[in-house]
Amino acid sequence: MSQSSSVKTAIAQSWVASANTGVTDFPLQNLPYGVFSTAAHPQPRVGVAIGDQVLDLAALEAAGVLTPSAASRVFDQPGLNAFIALGRDAWRATRARLTQLLDAGDAKLRDNAALRAAALVPLSEVSLHLPVDVPGYTDFYSSKEHATNVGSMFRDPANALLPNWLEIPIGYNGRASSVVVSGTPIHRPNGQIKLPDAARPVLEACRKLDFELETAFIVGRNTALGESIDVAHAEDAIFGMVVLNDWSARDLQQWEYVPLGPFNAKTFGTSISPWIVTMEALEPFRVAGPEQNPAPLSYLTDGAAHAFDVELEVRLQAEGDATPTTICRTNFRHMYWSMAQQLAHHTVSGCNVRVGDLMGSGTISGPTPESFGSMLELTWNGKQPLTLAGGGTRGFIEDGDTVSMLGWCQGNGYRVGFGEVSGKILPAKAR
Amino acid sequence: MSQSSSVKTAIAQSWVASANTGVTDFPLQNLPYGVFSTAAHPQPRVGVAIGDQVLDLAALEAAGVLTPSAASRVFDQPGLNAFIALGRDAWRATRARLTQLLDAGDAKLRDNAALRAAALVPLSEVSLHLPVDVPGYTDFYSSKEHATNVGSMFRDPANALLPNWLEIPIGYNGRASSVVVSGTPIHRPNGQIKLPDAARPVLEACRKLDFELETAFIVGRNTALGESIDVAHAEDAIFGMVVLNDWSARDLQQWEYVPLGPFNAKTFGTSISPWIVTMEALEPFRVAGPEQNPAPLSYLTDGAAHAFDVELEVRLQAEGDATPTTICRTNFRHMYWSMAQQLAHHTVSGCNVRVGDLMGSGTISGPTPESFGSMLELTWNGKQPLTLAGGGTRGFIEDGDTVSMLGWCQGNGYRVGFGEVSGKILPAKAR
Repeated sequence: MSQSSSVKTAIAQSWVASANTGVTDFPLQNLPYGVFSTAAHPQPRVGVAIGDQVLDLAALEAAGVLTPSAASRVFDQPGLNAFIALGRDAWRATRARLTQLLDAGDAKLRDNAALRAAALVPLSEVSLHLPVDVPGYTDFYSSKEHATNVGSMFRDPANALLPNWLEIPIGYNGRASSVVVSGTPIHRPNGQIKLPDAARPVLEACRKLDFELETAFIVGRNTALGESIDVAHAEDAIFGMVVLNDWSARDLQQWEYVPLGPFNAKTFGTSISPWIVTMEALEPFRVAGPEQNPAPLSYLTDGAAHAFDVELEVRLQAEGDATPTTICRTNFRHMYWSMAQQLAHHTVSGCNVRVGDLMGSGTISGPTPESFGSMLELTWNGKQPLTLAGGGTRGFIEDGDTVSMLGWCQGNGYRVGFGEVSGKILPAKAR
Repeated sequence: MSQSSSVKTAIAQSWVASANTGVTDFPLQNLPYGVFSTAAHPQPRVGVAIGDQVLDLAALEAAGVLTPSAASRVFDQPGLNAFIALGRDAWRATRARLTQLLDAGDAKLRDNAALRAAALVPLSEVSLHLPVDVPGYTDFYSSKEHATNVGSMFRDPANALLPNWLEIPIGYNGRASSVVVSGTPIHRPNGQIKLPDAARPVLEACRKLDFELETAFIVGRNTALGESIDVAHAEDAIFGMVVLNDWSARDLQQWEYVPLGPFNAKTFGTSISPWIVTMEALEPFRVAGPEQNPAPLSYLTDGAAHAFDVELEVRLQAEGDATPTTICRTNFRHMYWSMAQQLAHHTVSGCNVRVGDLMGSGTISGPTPESFGSMLELTWNGKQPLTLAGGGTRGFIEDGDTVSMLGWCQGNGYRVGFGEVSGKILPAKAR
């Protein structure tokens, strides 16, 4: 055995060789959950990504090799909700079991050719679906840099950050019906646009179409109306995370958002990555978040580190361009408010949450211009256009453009990746 | 036959005598749908209110006397979604069939003692449940008087109505998880309150707890992402209406709502009446809405009358008071923006809607002080307290208070009523 392979052996290895490359998003350390189907078996069901394969958990469940037992049939479902509802002990037991079954040294699945053939499907052959039924979608606004940038452009540069922002993990209710999985094309929305020199608005196709780079967490348990979740236990109620593109129509937004917040500017589509990376897989990447000054009210703080080191990247590819252009590089660790704080605040009123609820981070902008998480900020409201690899320039997103967002945690010799959330913009529908 | 009974005979009569009193909310002309259970048969199922009885549609379906046929089993369900999803032709056919089966002159059910015993349950013996599974909840803001009153108090009396209000049926995404049926008690929420003379907010129980008198409509069909519903066909996509109480924490709201809108101030509970009054039952009460000036953009107008004459009343009863006090009388016809306009605007962006989506009107305030639809307006932010029948005074809602809202359309010798939505406020949970 060469030295390099013996070094690699220090890292957990799978008998699925493509999981051991060091650059795959889906090594043995990750095991993210998704919902997939194939041409041969079009019924959507739960799987786990491993290297360039999907492990079909419905097949393993049927074969009786999983905990929870096959009797519960939580994986032969079109969403992860039933499995998530089993609770954290079941998540941990299943992760432990899958880690064992996929381990290079474990023979049970590795040496069972029939079961392996039934349960391993190449990623290239699957269609990926929304991983959970999303009963509720909440979007937060937790990047200080983003809130400051938007406040400067939409309101007043001298008072960009509103007084409540440093006290409240500000959030609002999003539209759950239009949450779609990566790959779903999105029509440019029509809506009311009020031009500065016009007396009245017009109904037109959005002229300032934007993305927002976000992550989101998936709620892992139901609470009762009136119940709140303490910040110290909030992460126990989170199943995992995805990358999220909060498509935004800036011209619609600016005209409609006072006083009740964004509505049609956001409801035409929200895209998420198909694989839910679990909190267990993210645990090695826990870091301290930014200093919070003033210290938050006590219901929002327990002294623990609740940020995670997730690298993020946005790429834009114009139709006809041979390659995408990376237009943003940032990190989830910059977020001022943590997921634990967001969930504690969401429920402090007694608002009940449900398994599968999707809670977006808000646009993730870092401190430097290339780390801004939206076109609005990257081009400063279109005034400083970006140049693409193919030579085109962009103030906002044009028809035919594809926006892709990638996220990963860089380990020592491996990465825990989110895959990507991608979406192509189609022309507005004729009216 | 006396003259008075011969006059009454001109009005449609049911063999369920309590449906013919002229004052019941539930005459033969109404036939609202709800979901109920009984101690003897605890499985929630669909029924229709008739006089002081509930007609069990699951029982009729099982007996094979309904269209759609019993095979579809749309009524032996804990929500109306499956029935609603059948579409408007099925709604009309079922209404026609029920009208016939309950008609005084029709023998089929009237003279079948066994089926009647199985299918008629006294209202006094049933528990009522949420009538639909609510996948999405949107709340509009369509009363000009309410928007003006709130704008005066929260912002600037000189510019109370914002420039976008006369162009857009302003709305925002509500929280669907905390929509509850009438009778469900609501805990006073905890939340951040920023007192005017304090440097920082505190986490405390809400001090300015309020109701908002609203109606809401239930969406009757699914649309695809990217699809919009034309204003001229919008009512075809509405199944019916309920009365809604949008409980509101004014002190939380004022501190949190800029820039993304109300969140914790509203997410702790939204109550709806248990019976969905169908658009067919409301048709005789269609009226022209208020004049709209400026004339709305063309996607919001088709020249037809889209308002409805629904009388509304709010009652507040303190714990220990022998009787409730009526504190507001108003009418749904005052609303500036119609349901058709709301739904056309909601979907013009391509936002998809789903069967069961709940869309609130916004607080229904009329032109006179006694017609204001919230405590905020009735007491002008607590400055002009109301006096209750029991002698107490109220600036806002206190613990133990029960708020009830009633709605009805007054016909000639009959009323099409909504019943009521009622809720009692419990003390805030200790933290």
